[in-house]
Amino acid sequence: MSHSNYNQAMLALGQAPSVIRETFEYGNRRAQEIGRENVFDFSLGNPSVPTPDAVQNTICRLVEETDPIQLHGYTSAIGAEPVRAAIAEDLNRRYDTGLSASDLYMTCGAAASLTITLHAILCPGDECITFAPFFPEYRVFVEATGAQFTVIDADTESFQMNLAAFSDTISAKTKAVMINTPNNPTGVVYTEENLQKLCEILRRKSAEYGHPIYLIADEPYRELVYDAATVVPYLTKLYAETFVCYSYSKSLSLPGDRIGYIVVSPQMTDNRLLYAAICGAGRALGFVCAPSMMQQVVAKNLGLTADLSIYRKNRDLLYNALTEYGYRCIYPDGAFYLFVEALEQDANAFCQKARDYELLLVPSDSFGCKGFVRISYCVTTEMIERSLPAFQKLAEAYRKS
Amino acid sequence: MSHSNYNQAMLALGQAPSVIRETFEYGNRRAQEIGRENVFDFSLGNPSVPTPDAVQNTICRLVEETDPIQLHGYTSAIGAEPVRAAIAEDLNRRYDTGLSASDLYMTCGAAASLTITLHAILCPGDECITFAPFFPEYRVFVEATGAQFTVIDADTESFQMNLAAFSDTISAKTKAVMINTPNNPTGVVYTEENLQKLCEILRRKSAEYGHPIYLIADEPYRELVYDAATVVPYLTKLYAETFVCYSYSKSLSLPGDRIGYIVVSPQMTDNRLLYAAICGAGRALGFVCAPSMMQQVVAKNLGLTADLSIYRKNRDLLYNALTEYGYRCIYPDGAFYLFVEALEQDANAFCQKARDYELLLVPSDSFGCKGFVRISYCVTTEMIERSLPAFQKLAEAYRKS
Repeated sequence: MSHSNYNQAMLALGQAPSVIRETFEYGNRRAQEIGRENVFDFSLGNPSVPTPDAVQNTICRLVEETDPIQLHGYTSAIGAEPVRAAIAEDLNRRYDTGLSASDLYMTCGAAASLTITLHAILCPGDECITFAPFFPEYRVFVEATGAQFTVIDADTESFQMNLAAFSDTISAKTKAVMINTPNNPTGVVYTEENLQKLCEILRRKSAEYGHPIYLIADEPYRELVYDAATVVPYLTKLYAETFVCYSYSKSLSLPGDRIGYIVVSPQMTDNRLLYAAICGAGRALGFVCAPSMMQQVVAKNLGLTADLSIYRKNRDLLYNALTEYGYRCIYPDGAFYLFVEALEQDANAFCQKARDYELLLVPSDSFGCKGFVRISYCVTTEMIERSLPAFQKLAEAYRKS
Repeated sequence: MSHSNYNQAMLALGQAPSVIRETFEYGNRRAQEIGRENVFDFSLGNPSVPTPDAVQNTICRLVEETDPIQLHGYTSAIGAEPVRAAIAEDLNRRYDTGLSASDLYMTCGAAASLTITLHAILCPGDECITFAPFFPEYRVFVEATGAQFTVIDADTESFQMNLAAFSDTISAKTKAVMINTPNNPTGVVYTEENLQKLCEILRRKSAEYGHPIYLIADEPYRELVYDAATVVPYLTKLYAETFVCYSYSKSLSLPGDRIGYIVVSPQMTDNRLLYAAICGAGRALGFVCAPSMMQQVVAKNLGLTADLSIYRKNRDLLYNALTEYGYRCIYPDGAFYLFVEALEQDANAFCQKARDYELLLVPSDSFGCKGFVRISYCVTTEMIERSLPAFQKLAEAYRKS
């Protein structure tokens, strides 16, 4: 006999307060009181640059020129073969990855890529490790499989991976490690050297424990890097036991259309079995297939991105100004987040104080790291410009106190 | 320490043979050998009628006239408020249901509606019951929650619900019952009288065991009924503890676009808690939000359906002809399936024999009921006409033997 009329864990998740959502809603109330233009909302990670016209045109052209039964029909669960082949070819051209269509599985976006991959490999009793600070839904996704979610404390100087702590934490129950580079919430890009070291550790520990430890690379921000010198290595090339989870949400500014994919490394031990487990997990979770029309849309716009130069301009403006005002900012090579040390120990208290200046920031606690705030600069450049005096006054207020 | 490099249950699901897929692939091979026009493939449940022009026009208009950041942006996890309000109003108009926007949760289609609802209520140790014959993924979806899946044997005369057996099966561990009317694979619509009796049993047993037994109504075929007299009651009106799982895949011929919703009955005990559990389950499974643009598209085409008269024409043609040839056909009031008794005990053997006449049918075994075949009549009327001599010869072959 069951103990409850519903699944208590799901209820708890559904009722969990979200500081990001609460901040966003506060911003909406405040905008009604004092006008939208006087509220500086840096809370949400939504793309602020429109999808390219080419993407919009592709949608209309597909609707006008394709048999509607085919355009709106199911694809196979793994995605349309020509779409997977085209994406594989594009990745091979850009990264020399040696992928084929059968290494790709189309998904309903980044979250689906992650939940499907995690369900394919994790069982209760297993452990999945990640590095702080991290996207808070990682915990939700891992714990939904029944596995244990373990966090490696942040290196609050560099915000690179704390590899010594990682190596010490891995045990026989460690089945996977999830990484996110360029990183949400810091904007840091893990260096190739550090990624090589991570893979070395994984190879050594996999051999020691006699089973592969999988690397799950969450890469929605892959294309969002702002300096020519910044390299984001393709991880299947560094480590055979790699799943790459991708989404077009950020690169093409299509978050609402739910389209992405999983790459199962062709070098992976038991590649075909793991791919089949991905198929099984997608089926069990109820995904059926990735949105068919959007599969066609992304396949016809490979290599294209939204105008990412706006994010670079925003980054430079905000980083330079805040550094000048005396804030300690982590230099973001990618994504659209600036991670800034709070001016008092308690980041929540700091964010409350920032609201006195109509600045809406997200405290770092929910990302698994205390004492910082996340500033999402996927906003208009003009709003950033108008917000700068407020950041300056906030810093001054702390200097006076 | 884990016993496997992957989740064995997911691997098994990913590797499971599917008789429908196998039949479809056989059809493709056969089409290459003898020409597509000579193969009569009745295996797939894909809409064969195009989505209305109005839907196509809405997509283009939205792309041309909406701010792309908004059109392709995230909605809240539960779906855009105006979309939910519009759907609630449409349902209230059609069925006098008294729903509000806050009773609806937008999803990525029927499968997502089901997995989210099941995860919201079921825990390991619970039981979910369904009536044979049933859509085979029900077992996958229920077992993914850790709950037990229990099947009530078919009433092979009427293919209505076997309520006596159902009443005898319910126990303290029964948390939910799933029904599907109009039904896949039979096309039968459960009578209002039988649905009233089902709800009576649920009320009595809920009282007896001291907890609600939920009714999960899987309704992708709601609008696919062909006789003016056929009534498909709205189940929240018959029973308070009801979830309605809907998808636009069949009614608007948009299966690839993955758009649907869950209705949580406003009369449900703990309605707000159950709604929160739905939110938690959607989050844990990785759905984020239903496709944003498609939310707008369906909200702007409420009350519209694809041209369903083609399915009625197909039904009449096939039912009348096969009955005339001596087949025992279950009269389908809805959906686009005809359920026909096999001409020998083993439906698999019968389907193999049918292939000698290039007829591709699906044996009923995977639907939890032996001795029948499913004929999907979501095909061209012209293919049905050309296939009739083959059905006639198949019947004659059995009469001779």
